[in-house]
Amino acid sequence: MKYSSQLIEKAVESFSSLPGIGKKSALRLALYLLNKDPEWVRSFSDSFVRLRNELKECEECHNLGDDTECSVCKDKHRNQDIICVVESIRDLMAIEETRHFNGLYHVIGGLISPIDGIGPDQLNIDDLADRIQKRNIKEVVMAISPNIEGETTMFYLSKKLKSLNVKISTIARGISFGGELEYADEITLGRSILSRIPYMLYDAETSA
Amino acid sequence: MKYSSQLIEKAVESFSSLPGIGKKSALRLALYLLNKDPEWVRSFSDSFVRLRNELKECEECHNLGDDTECSVCKDKHRNQDIICVVESIRDLMAIEETRHFNGLYHVIGGLISPIDGIGPDQLNIDDLADRIQKRNIKEVVMAISPNIEGETTMFYLSKKLKSLNVKISTIARGISFGGELEYADEITLGRSILSRIPYMLYDAETSA
Repeated sequence: MKYSSQLIEKAVESFSSLPGIGKKSALRLALYLLNKDPEWVRSFSDSFVRLRNELKECEECHNLGDDTECSVCKDKHRNQDIICVVESIRDLMAIEETRHFNGLYHVIGGLISPIDGIGPDQLNIDDLADRIQKRNIKEVVMAISPNIEGETTMFYLSKKLKSLNVKISTIARGISFGGELEYADEITLGRSILSRIPYMLYDAETSA
Repeated sequence: MKYSSQLIEKAVESFSSLPGIGKKSALRLALYLLNKDPEWVRSFSDSFVRLRNELKECEECHNLGDDTECSVCKDKHRNQDIICVVESIRDLMAIEETRHFNGLYHVIGGLISPIDGIGPDQLNIDDLADRIQKRNIKEVVMAISPNIEGETTMFYLSKKLKSLNVKISTIARGISFGGELEYADEITLGRSILSRIPYMLYDAETSA
């Protein structure tokens, strides 16, 4: 596409370099900015520069935050005996959103994937083991997606943590709430029968 | 959603204030920026501030550009006798993209829409009439979307320009290339028969 202005071209390029945004959407977004107050656009743009330059990784759990000690690690009202291991801070946020977990986290920053050349050394696994020993952690919940890389990672983690005196659990697999039995895949359905649980009414206030 | 950092929250807010981007996509985009070079993010953000602050409207045709005389008006090789009237610079760009028009433009900046409180006075119509007289324009092509507001605007424009000694035309309506007759609406199909044209092979080099 030919643009009447280099400024438009540059802004369209910026937007379309983001994942999932094509040239046409990018142009629409650029023209949208033109209708906004200059001060608004400045604060809009600043938010990205500040995000990139000022965001800090928690030295304890690798969560991201405004400080080198994240908001979860800072909160001493949380259960200090249990660590939930997650792949990314997006998964951490999703779990926080449920309000059913009140312990600590450990963001390993990826999954073991030999195809992509990612081995355990590239992940934050060694310091998880250190942390469990130092903080005398009682339980590790592996909240990791049950795909091939995830299963590999959980297998590695469970082997690695076996010698430490810590209970290892994983989040339940089963039929989603609102899901239809007839459309569930056989592995999930089969396992959900094997790991059947006593019937109970969930209490919205319950958290680990 | 609860964010572990105000910086993330602010960046997610910025992205999700754009049309068509929800909170989840916004978070994905914000986390994408974290993997980029700080210098890249600065130039990314700068492009929006510069777009908003430095882009200029052409004094002649209201196209947007790096200067108060746009690249189209500057180009003296273009046909100075014909003006194509468009609603927005997005439509202007779409026509430029076809390479079939080599005249000048006039961006009226919207369509007449009493429901939205937009009358002819809010549009760049008066200066179009002045321009036609001053520049001795021979033809005005109305390239305006054929919806209710568009038809109203074309009706108003044709009345307004009637007294000036200028030929008024509109872009052809008909079946799209690659379109299927059986799925075309009756108005389009009916009009395409009434305004049938001599059969010709289009020449890619042809332009108005």
